[in-house]
Amino acid sequence: MKLYDGGRAPNPRRMRIFLAEKGIEVPLIPVDMAAMEHKSPGITALNPLQRLPILELDDGTILTESVAISRYFEELYPEPPLFGTGSLGKALVEMWNRRVELYLMAAITAAFRHTHPAMIEWEIPQVPAWGEANRPKALQYMKIMDDQLAQNEFIAGSAFSIADITLLVATDFLKPAKLQIPEEMGHLRRWQAEVSGRPSARA
Amino acid sequence: MKLYDGGRAPNPRRMRIFLAEKGIEVPLIPVDMAAMEHKSPGITALNPLQRLPILELDDGTILTESVAISRYFEELYPEPPLFGTGSLGKALVEMWNRRVELYLMAAITAAFRHTHPAMIEWEIPQVPAWGEANRPKALQYMKIMDDQLAQNEFIAGSAFSIADITLLVATDFLKPAKLQIPEEMGHLRRWQAEVSGRPSARA
Repeated sequence: MKLYDGGRAPNPRRMRIFLAEKGIEVPLIPVDMAAMEHKSPGITALNPLQRLPILELDDGTILTESVAISRYFEELYPEPPLFGTGSLGKALVEMWNRRVELYLMAAITAAFRHTHPAMIEWEIPQVPAWGEANRPKALQYMKIMDDQLAQNEFIAGSAFSIADITLLVATDFLKPAKLQIPEEMGHLRRWQAEVSGRPSARA
Repeated sequence: MKLYDGGRAPNPRRMRIFLAEKGIEVPLIPVDMAAMEHKSPGITALNPLQRLPILELDDGTILTESVAISRYFEELYPEPPLFGTGSLGKALVEMWNRRVELYLMAAITAAFRHTHPAMIEWEIPQVPAWGEANRPKALQYMKIMDDQLAQNEFIAGSAFSIADITLLVATDFLKPAKLQIPEEMGHLRRWQAEVSGRPSARA
């Protein structure tokens, strides 16, 4: 198998951190997103959505979406569990991964892509009013994360999970979006410092 | 346990269709979203995101996000499997459920919420330019679904799955968004007619 990787972009990074936490090595095929290689005919043939990462199995089967590829590896190599354990534990990881991705990460991404001058060829059309509308949303969602982390070591409870990977990539994306974790959100700051110290964070 | 339900809104409906396909009965607590009851202090205490559905277990544990609640029931009652079977099958359902939800359904929802006059108190601020930007995206993503359905009975392959539920709710939401499946997308139209005929579609 091989994994088409996209460098510093958030979703390829989620994938690499997941693999590092699992201790799984997959040959990486670099795709230069700055040169728009993810929109090339070759990549488009693999994924019509022109997104990375893409996993190609030896029989040619294609998997896209970092969370779907991660789930494939979780099923093949259950240890350490990153999608939770038990019915309720799995559901809580799913819930928190969605809360982080569909609310917080989506808001940060919209703020970045719709207001940053470097994104004008990436987000067509850029709608600056939509980007600005997402800044207060990002703060509101960070507060929900901070409240959860006041009671829990990790975002979905007592164990590190894929939801922490999503939250790390989301909070590391605050800076390019010209946002930051407010000083008063000490629990989220504590969590970010801890999770950033894991070896996988450098993946 | 009890399920706080939100009537005709897309995510509560996804939940009810999933339960109907599983043959699971859960006591429903109706929440009048037209009267903004989902923003009441009681619901906010259960889900700070003020979204429905919400599952409350007998011990008071709260689960939110229809997909997370669905996964909880899938773990408890595996038959019929709606999240796929086998490592690759589960990954493909995850991939297609995400493609439908994060691209197509997100585009349709944005087109509706940011341009429909009835949504002015729901989407604050409404950004009509963002709503309009999503109309061509919705068409582009429908084409990807149509291409997949040219080769497959259901959206994730040969078996009905949660990704079909998401796609049914998404396509039923085209009309309020003043969109429709183009005539030439016969595979998506064939699929919609078939899936709409399942008893669960009336849930």
